[in-house]
Amino acid sequence: MTAAFPDLLSLDDGRFAIDITPALAVGPPGHAYLFGGACLALALDAAAEAVQRPVVQGALQFVSFTPLGARLQLAVDILQAGRTLAQVQVSGRVDDRLVLMAGVTLGERAGFADQQWLAAPLVPPPEQCLPSTSLPRQDDNAHFLEAIEVRELAEDGLPTGRARFWLRRKAMGPIDTASLALFADFIPVALGRVSGRPGGGNSIDNSLRMVRSAPPGWCLADITITAAASGFAQGRVDLWSEQGDLLATGGQTLLFNPG
Amino acid sequence: MTAAFPDLLSLDDGRFAIDITPALAVGPPGHAYLFGGACLALALDAAAEAVQRPVVQGALQFVSFTPLGARLQLAVDILQAGRTLAQVQVSGRVDDRLVLMAGVTLGERAGFADQQWLAAPLVPPPEQCLPSTSLPRQDDNAHFLEAIEVRELAEDGLPTGRARFWLRRKAMGPIDTASLALFADFIPVALGRVSGRPGGGNSIDNSLRMVRSAPPGWCLADITITAAASGFAQGRVDLWSEQGDLLATGGQTLLFNPG
Repeated sequence: MTAAFPDLLSLDDGRFAIDITPALAVGPPGHAYLFGGACLALALDAAAEAVQRPVVQGALQFVSFTPLGARLQLAVDILQAGRTLAQVQVSGRVDDRLVLMAGVTLGERAGFADQQWLAAPLVPPPEQCLPSTSLPRQDDNAHFLEAIEVRELAEDGLPTGRARFWLRRKAMGPIDTASLALFADFIPVALGRVSGRPGGGNSIDNSLRMVRSAPPGWCLADITITAAASGFAQGRVDLWSEQGDLLATGGQTLLFNPG
Repeated sequence: MTAAFPDLLSLDDGRFAIDITPALAVGPPGHAYLFGGACLALALDAAAEAVQRPVVQGALQFVSFTPLGARLQLAVDILQAGRTLAQVQVSGRVDDRLVLMAGVTLGERAGFADQQWLAAPLVPPPEQCLPSTSLPRQDDNAHFLEAIEVRELAEDGLPTGRARFWLRRKAMGPIDTASLALFADFIPVALGRVSGRPGGGNSIDNSLRMVRSAPPGWCLADITITAAASGFAQGRVDLWSEQGDLLATGGQTLLFNPG
């Protein structure tokens, strides 16, 4: 188990398993599956558990959907583990079918000063923002989005490719690596808003670069959809604390049908 | 062989090999190795050759250096290949030692309109910019950087975390996926400039999200170093054509000793 996933079973030899319940599922009516950001969060948490170091960065390919009701089996294979960092591969299977494959770097180096170059965006605080109306309708058994408070910034719109959301887990733990992986996967919601097509597109991959975790509170997801070509859209996200600390950056590519 | 790598040998079963010559090497005196961006470019080209589709995105972990003089063996393993896209894993070995591991998505979907949301930065053209003085001194047998013209924009500086370079391959082919992978790995040069520490840091990974290729010409690398924590720095790059078309975006995490 980890803080974000109390039901994640730790087996031997870097193997893990979790049953996909409605609390972890998203999807339109008739098609409930494990939330993509939860796939990445689970892969990162499993990697951190296996090597007992914090995550620095990770990139995950979605090979197939992990349906509601499935048991997801994760295996952490160590590519290299030295003094400075560990690099692992995390594969996920349902029965014997590969559903995800991730590369993760982990480590912590003492004695280096932190620096932040990127300036925090000037935005209205969450208290001044309204609950989001951009979330797509969900299957009756897909409850993941109900666990996250989503407020959207009113000034965002179609021309810029940018959409910003204040996000908070109702469970109210610290904003840790798993939380940031979950929040980073609001890029499809932003694509929906930016393109005017609810639901946006289907994630092909999710990546996350960690800076730091933060105490419980709201997290600003500042999302930019950069471009779409050949039916693929590209997006990125900066994740900020309420205090203006950059917590992580993320990105993903989506299957996108602009209509 | 591919356009960017005429010496890349295509063997059977998705396997490839290339001998690392001075033309592919970078590094300080006494430590010449395969340029990181060339690792990613080779992995992407090998993946595209193996499945005969264009690259959509890729993310590569550097597990170890690939020294000058080594023979790099690449193996492309197909995770999934459907009608819409193919997902593969590319591993790289020198002798039997793993040096790189990448996940790559490939595909092309006909009939979708292209869109660009991100606005091209307003910058002086390459003709008005001076050759870069930010490149670190190289080993006598590391000639990769000599094949790229690098001009830097004078207005960049320490406070912003941003550095911009006009880049052009002297070989003057189209700005294809391999070229963009090479250009994306100027993030360490930007980190050097932003931090005032020549050389910047050592890349742990390289990732690239493709939008489109472009005809021969200059490419603007607009690089942002976002933050550094625990001795790791995070950076990203937007790659633009001279005409203001977004060609690709990239990112990487670096080992960084701020001193």
